Amino acid sequence: MIPAHADKMLGVDWGTSNRRAYLVERGGRCLARHEDGQGMLAVGGDFAGSLAALRQTMRVDDAVPVVMSGMIGSAGGWQEVPYLDIATPLAALASHLAPVAGHPGCLIVPGYCTRADGVDVMRGEETQLLGALALGVGDGTVVLPGTHSKWVQLRGGRIARFATFMTGELFAMLAAGGTLAAIMGPGEDDDDAFAAGIAQARLGLPLSQSLFGARARVVAKDMAPSKARSFVSGLLIGTEFTASGAGPGARLSILGSNALGAHYARAARHFCEAPAVLDADAVYLAALTQLLQGSQHE
Amino acid sequence: MIPAHADKMLGVDWGTSNRRAYLVERGGRCLARHEDGQGMLAVGGDFAGSLAALRQTMRVDDAVPVVMSGMIGSAGGWQEVPYLDIATPLAALASHLAPVAGHPGCLIVPGYCTRADGVDVMRGEETQLLGALALGVGDGTVVLPGTHSKWVQLRGGRIARFATFMTGELFAMLAAGGTLAAIMGPGEDDDDAFAAGIAQARLGLPLSQSLFGARARVVAKDMAPSKARSFVSGLLIGTEFTASGAGPGARLSILGSNALGAHYARAARHFCEAPAVLDADAVYLAALTQLLQGSQHE
Repeated sequence: MIPAHADKMLGVDWGTSNRRAYLVERGGRCLARHEDGQGMLAVGGDFAGSLAALRQTMRVDDAVPVVMSGMIGSAGGWQEVPYLDIATPLAALASHLAPVAGHPGCLIVPGYCTRADGVDVMRGEETQLLGALALGVGDGTVVLPGTHSKWVQLRGGRIARFATFMTGELFAMLAAGGTLAAIMGPGEDDDDAFAAGIAQARLGLPLSQSLFGARARVVAKDMAPSKARSFVSGLLIGTEFTASGAGPGARLSILGSNALGAHYARAARHFCEAPAVLDADAVYLAALTQLLQGSQHE
Repeated sequence: MIPAHADKMLGVDWGTSNRRAYLVERGGRCLARHEDGQGMLAVGGDFAGSLAALRQTMRVDDAVPVVMSGMIGSAGGWQEVPYLDIATPLAALASHLAPVAGHPGCLIVPGYCTRADGVDVMRGEETQLLGALALGVGDGTVVLPGTHSKWVQLRGGRIARFATFMTGELFAMLAAGGTLAAIMGPGEDDDDAFAAGIAQARLGLPLSQSLFGARARVVAKDMAPSKARSFVSGLLIGTEFTASGAGPGARLSILGSNALGAHYARAARHFCEAPAVLDADAVYLAALTQLLQGSQHE
């Protein structure tokens, strides 16, 4: 729990490779912001030292509570925080913050776990979802593109279900080595090839089959090698849309206004109405404000 | 076309990384056999020189015709040989051998291409399928496990359809780096985890989702990390079975009596009757004999 008297808070989205930190005041204004590569892997276990250095950089004294989200709460992070079940409303995150043992004022946001259709987990995205709710995103589907994209169905302030897709990781792996790498070199985005990848995804064949199909198209001279990168991108992203049943009438919000978010918005056109695209920074700030204000009502 | 007077033939299964060579006589007896790492990538473009060295090693003189199959007939091989459509019967391969320009007595077996459900191609497997037919494999499904596994439906001596799955390549990639690598270290085969992977495959979710689920099971403490390798193996192989609609009553032949073939035979138990398992060497020899004998009837 954030102390009720706190009028400022340091929020840190602390992931595996990077972290983003924001100093917010109760009204929601962002007083300072910092981003660096001191993710979980770079810190080498000294999270307290790393946080102290961050406070110094941002000129935030020790009295200001810090709320951290992301992989910092995983087994390899500062302290493992058990997952919440998705029955717990997002608004209740404020009362489920886990204090870091021995470090007063240091709190970690718990992630969520679900056990429908196998097991799925999130850490960090729950905070963004809280921010999305605060920004007026209602019932519908929220997509969080990334190395591990999340598709979340929101219903009445709760996560009804969610699914993770290793889209970004698979794309990077396939481009880095193996059969497809030779034809997945950096190139211009190709709308037609992206659409062809989406059309292939709609067939619902396993990715292990459709990915080989990208190479088969090239060696059978049905597709120029320069189009393979966009085809694979469309195939992997289209697979998410197909699996999630996104269709006409779907209320889709994409959380991320960067280049990757733009790819998802481009894919969405093939399935449903134009999605709302939210800025990830704005969403995270809204979440922090929510957590800080929520502390007043407890 | 193999000269009708030839009473011996050198057959080379010439792949990307390796090659296997057999000297066969018309009756089907194998007179010599050689295997080495002089695949397409190692040869550096000098296929004629590499073949001459192979002849020397195996003491096969220049008068003996050589029939080559596999990636040697691809764009990066000795000479690109156009794919046959699957309407062409396997028995007709003998009359579609492509002579290598400027190298009399050097022939390449063409691969097959299909354009159902996207595009798919094979090079090398067609020769093995010819051998399987010769060994009595009739209508039904032939599985050729490997880096790129093939599932082939045979009907009346023709390929009715086929599908390729990048199963072996994906497994190796995932084990080598990224999110799953840490939990996919070498370990004992675990039957229960393999079966759990197959059960997950049956749900028909995209692999990009189910693969993340392997990690989610571990971090949510639903599965011991030591089981992840077998789970992923069951998931990827089970995906092939599920996509291919293998069910009770299916006539399945697995082409490969090695450790990988055993994994597929183990998976088959979850779907259908015990498959026939054929030895890849025996199958290739049968194919060469078939090509050599076929030349007599032309």
